[in-house]
Amino acid sequence: MSNFKVINKIYKFSTRGEIDFVDLSNKVQKEVADSEIRNGIVHVFSPHATGILVLTENDCALLEDIKIFLDKLAPKHKEYLHPSNAHSHLRSMLLPPDKTLPIINGRIEFGTWQSLLFVETDVYPRERTIIIQIIGEQ
Amino acid sequence: MSNFKVINKIYKFSTRGEIDFVDLSNKVQKEVADSEIRNGIVHVFSPHATGILVLTENDCALLEDIKIFLDKLAPKHKEYLHPSNAHSHLRSMLLPPDKTLPIINGRIEFGTWQSLLFVETDVYPRERTIIIQIIGEQ
Amino acid sequence: MSNFKVINKIYKFSTRGEIDFVDLSNKVQKEVADSEIRNGIVHVFSPHATGILVLTENDCALLEDIKIFLDKLAPKHKEYLHPSNAHSHLRSMLLPPDKTLPIINGRIEFGTWQSLLFVETDVYPRERTIIIQIIGEQ
Repeated sequence: MSNFKVINKIYKFSTRGEIDFVDLSNKVQKEVADSEIRNGIVHVFSPHATGILVLTENDCALLEDIKIFLDKLAPKHKEYLHPSNAHSHLRSMLLPPDKTLPIINGRIEFGTWQSLLFVETDVYPRERTIIIQIIGEQ
Repeated sequence: MSNFKVINKIYKFSTRGEIDFVDLSNKVQKEVADSEIRNGIVHVFSPHATGILVLTENDCALLEDIKIFLDKLAPKHKEYLHPSNAHSHLRSMLLPPDKTLPIINGRIEFGTWQSLLFVETDVYPRERTIIIQIIGEQ
Repeated sequence: MSNFKVINKIYKFSTRGEIDFVDLSNKVQKEVADSEIRNGIVHVFSPHATGILVLTENDCALLEDIKIFLDKLAPKHKEYLHPSNAHSHLRSMLLPPDKTLPIINGRIEFGTWQSLLFVETDVYPRERTIIIQIIGEQ
């Protein structure tokens, strides 16, 4: 009989302003190790309407490309109807703040070039929360 | 020993035409309450190739910005090869009709400004279905 | 008492080059049938930073539209800072290589026009892996 569980963890951190990148890969990998869940999934969710979670290569040049890319997709200076941070909302809608990742033999199966990054899309530094849910068999 | 379950619910509703927004937050929150699942996830999925599920602020001005944003990302009048509603498919591919949300202590942990919205991307009113799956411990 | 399980399967395949489409619907549906999971979810994840998983209609004309659409969203010839395949990374970030799908009565509830497609975004043919996790009650 399998021992199926869900383990919920909360992680809080600060961002330094618009399009700050925070690498959460090691934090989430460690929570999975501590949970002793061997096979299952981890669902990472940020309860914010102006944040993003992506999987991508954590390479300085690429992060700069991403910054320019986000500004091309949902420009900051365009005249929106929603006041002050509509572009922040549009970016978070397009690249939503959640990811589901596979756990096999007690580890998240990140690809070699996949890091889990939080991207601040709001226009000033914020306190942010992520909910890490580890679901599976111990 | 935990009591792990999956509870499947189907919800049907009508849309009034292209880029109609339907707020599903309360419906899904109520299904979670009724399920008596305390900790886990809810997966919401719409089996349609021309629909979208997003988390965003349900604010009239922002919804108008979203309408313009979708038309910028995948314009309606461009010459596509697929007949009649290619732009509807492209929008649904870019912003897919599924979301996974965390349940903690019997409630979905929506952020303050996060509502779960279905967006009709097809070109006429449609009957739509969402599958709500609540997975976790009672 | 329910019999809750997670079953992990690995599938490897080759792509023929940039923007090759590989339809995985039947493969994943078959793994679900073989798993004997009746109700739950299947999480499909590709551990690659230059691949995409989408749900869309597998129609030749639409696939051609998608090719043009990807090139419009993240153009290939633009001057990026990341060398050689920045556009491949940006496309995979925007349309990430994972999907969660509902299983009801032993089958994935694809919509009529929803096929699960892997899209190669890297610039040459690659060996690719997908992790198929079937989670639920037998």
